[in-house]
Amino acid sequence: MNIRMIAQILGKVLFTIAVLLLLPAIVALLYRESPFPFLLTVLISAALGGLLSLLKPRNTKIYAREGFVCVGLSWLCISLLGALPFIFSGDIPNYINALFETASGFTTTGASILTNVEALSMSGLFWRSFTHWIGGMGVLVFIMAVLPMSGSRSMHIMRAEVPGPTVGKLVPSARKTAGILYLIYILLTLVETVLLLCGGMNLFDALIHSFGTAGTGGFSNRAASVGFYSPYVQVVITVFMFLFGVNFNLYFLILAGKIREALKSEELHVYLCLAALGILAITVNILPLYGSFGVSLRHSAFQVGSIMSTTGYATADFNQWPEFSKWILVLFMFTGACAGSTCGGLKISRIMLLFKGIRQELWRQQHPHGVSVVRLEKKPVAESTLHTTLVFAACYIGILLLGTLCLSLDGFDLTTNFTGTLACISNIGPGLNAVGPTGNFAMFSGGNKLLLSFIMILGRLEIFPLLLLFSPSVWRKQ
Amino acid sequence: MNIRMIAQILGKVLFTIAVLLLLPAIVALLYRESPFPFLLTVLISAALGGLLSLLKPRNTKIYAREGFVCVGLSWLCISLLGALPFIFSGDIPNYINALFETASGFTTTGASILTNVEALSMSGLFWRSFTHWIGGMGVLVFIMAVLPMSGSRSMHIMRAEVPGPTVGKLVPSARKTAGILYLIYILLTLVETVLLLCGGMNLFDALIHSFGTAGTGGFSNRAASVGFYSPYVQVVITVFMFLFGVNFNLYFLILAGKIREALKSEELHVYLCLAALGILAITVNILPLYGSFGVSLRHSAFQVGSIMSTTGYATADFNQWPEFSKWILVLFMFTGACAGSTCGGLKISRIMLLFKGIRQELWRQQHPHGVSVVRLEKKPVAESTLHTTLVFAACYIGILLLGTLCLSLDGFDLTTNFTGTLACISNIGPGLNAVGPTGNFAMFSGGNKLLLSFIMILGRLEIFPLLLLFSPSVWRKQ
Repeated sequence: MNIRMIAQILGKVLFTIAVLLLLPAIVALLYRESPFPFLLTVLISAALGGLLSLLKPRNTKIYAREGFVCVGLSWLCISLLGALPFIFSGDIPNYINALFETASGFTTTGASILTNVEALSMSGLFWRSFTHWIGGMGVLVFIMAVLPMSGSRSMHIMRAEVPGPTVGKLVPSARKTAGILYLIYILLTLVETVLLLCGGMNLFDALIHSFGTAGTGGFSNRAASVGFYSPYVQVVITVFMFLFGVNFNLYFLILAGKIREALKSEELHVYLCLAALGILAITVNILPLYGSFGVSLRHSAFQVGSIMSTTGYATADFNQWPEFSKWILVLFMFTGACAGSTCGGLKISRIMLLFKGIRQELWRQQHPHGVSVVRLEKKPVAESTLHTTLVFAACYIGILLLGTLCLSLDGFDLTTNFTGTLACISNIGPGLNAVGPTGNFAMFSGGNKLLLSFIMILGRLEIFPLLLLFSPSVWRKQ
Repeated sequence: MNIRMIAQILGKVLFTIAVLLLLPAIVALLYRESPFPFLLTVLISAALGGLLSLLKPRNTKIYAREGFVCVGLSWLCISLLGALPFIFSGDIPNYINALFETASGFTTTGASILTNVEALSMSGLFWRSFTHWIGGMGVLVFIMAVLPMSGSRSMHIMRAEVPGPTVGKLVPSARKTAGILYLIYILLTLVETVLLLCGGMNLFDALIHSFGTAGTGGFSNRAASVGFYSPYVQVVITVFMFLFGVNFNLYFLILAGKIREALKSEELHVYLCLAALGILAITVNILPLYGSFGVSLRHSAFQVGSIMSTTGYATADFNQWPEFSKWILVLFMFTGACAGSTCGGLKISRIMLLFKGIRQELWRQQHPHGVSVVRLEKKPVAESTLHTTLVFAACYIGILLLGTLCLSLDGFDLTTNFTGTLACISNIGPGLNAVGPTGNFAMFSGGNKLLLSFIMILGRLEIFPLLLLFSPSVWRKQ
């Protein structure tokens, strides 16, 4: 294990966070609030980053496990540090609560312990939503895009931080790939902000909601979430939630003029079909509640987009919807949207691999000595990738079931515990019942809030990087 | 596909059911009830069996897929036929309800649509519980033990009907293996019946509850289930529920004098450890409800034994227990007990394989080019067995989630739908809320009752045999 190299990269992460924290400090000055909470955190991050940079690496070689450890440790550190401004400003006086809110921000979950979000300072609200934007595309991918790093090593990091069963480089250089991803990300965010401004939203609210949509996070500065705004705003955000659930590789193809190739994506087709089916089923199911087909369709499309992209905004209290609609949303909490997007959940391509794996197994049961290959996007999928996907799904369900067990110690009902854990591991935000769109996570015990923070990071990093941190074999010398 | 050979075997199954139906006819005569409903079904079964036997096979060779189809079709047929006596006698006038109750019986689920079980005729009650006993060890395994069949072909059937990730022959001959399994089964059933008689139970009740325990079914002839009887009876049934959850291979080893070898079983250790942990946690958790440690321990041990062995008897309304205890029981609904027993669920050995698979994957993530082997019971597990186990678990969860979706159309709450589907696929019987120990499945729509009947058979046959029936490739000529 190349610990010095890990320290080096971790140092860079802390410096980056220090720089990014200057933005909410500026916001504080603009709104005549004290920038002190952010500047103090800048100092702490920079000092820690400086200390870590003192450990000069003897060689710069890193392998898969260093990549995982880097990403796992970075995400733990930024969550622990990012919580400090809330403490210093008094916005969230309890550290465990602040940590939960920050982990929820960076992991783009959007689950909150705030009972009155509108009481927060403007700079606090800004930082809270800005963590969504940083976490959406990934802090290490950001560093790769901005700072020089050698090719082979950065790929190990990228593989650990970018969600999906397989990670493809758009261009031969990993650094350029990271740059292109961020470019698309910034572009889409800007377009959404402009469109929201056109709808009469003020700049602050437009930024907050663009950050929340882009990162598929879901923090709003309004208690009524997006339900506070006009139907125009709701429609714009619906469209962008779906857009941010698409694999970013497709946008790259479109930018490169290969629109046809992009539209042929098997995952995109399944994504759109599932979304259309879900929207239609829910629209019909909730029609008696809203009377008008248009209103039902708008609410249905918004909520399906919000849950599939794992954003977690709401325009309606879907906890009051019929059981059928609610369970469709729960199913979408499992699937999420496309791999290579900023969304959470299992990802559509993994669900497709699971179904194809089941079909293959049925064939194999009949032909014990036959050879069969699973294909995705018309390319053969390695047996090991399929196997890893199955193990990943088993881990996912295992964490969900054991997480629910821990939550049940606090005495809330099964639906709250189950959907609460699911909403955290899938980085969605709201679940059902007490953690529904009008509820929050404030009532859970401190221990369970810590557990859920951990589960959110597990979900964002797709389990293995964080789990490996706690595997003794990783720390053994080779 | 050797369809004539399948017809031949199916014919034997129908003849066997016809013979077994004579037993409740005798019970009817003893209790001065009409044997007509059973005798009429005997006639129908025998006639259908005779028709199928007319198709003489050109060759007797069958392969894996014929084994699956045989088992799948047999279980559908016996459920459809076994429901007839309830219709003819008027005990259950609605055919869908009767089918649900019969499928629940044969699959040893024990879920009921009866709102007043004590109103049933004695012969009806006997048949209902006797289906548990037939289904527990398997009807085709029974035929194998009694009728001559050539070796290689019977193994394909046994593999499809006996639960567990791998099926081992106890002795070189599959027929003798089947015989030994039934011998152990009968022996344990008899011992339990005698012990229950010693507790002052009448012969009828003792048989009903021995059938229910042996098959890990859970039908009782009392509305209060086993809670109706004395603590002595409850303790006896607790012990036997745990005993019927043990892999029958271990009893064979014990009978062969290899007690030490039997006690070394890795699966047995995990089974007992999980059970002990569960009992302890629940006992402490429900102590405030019952006051006395002894009473809490008795109820806790009974319910843990009942759910782990997937029997489904109850001595207490565990739906009123704290959330923590309830969720522990839900987790046991997933695990079940040992492979090679009469229980349902995923089976402990599969859970162990899943955990070992996750550990292996974590190791592989660090050593992408390394070689690692998973071991169970100190023997290396084939990569394909591990893969099949993972796919099986994915199917299981998939059916659970989609089953819950269908149930949610009836408008009951999430907990009812989720645990109701889980209780059916794991062949347990009661779930939580409306399908809890004091509830039943009567309120679901006809369509959903049919679906749940199908899910119970899916669970009993471990999914693949029944799913293959609906795979077009199985029916193609090769």
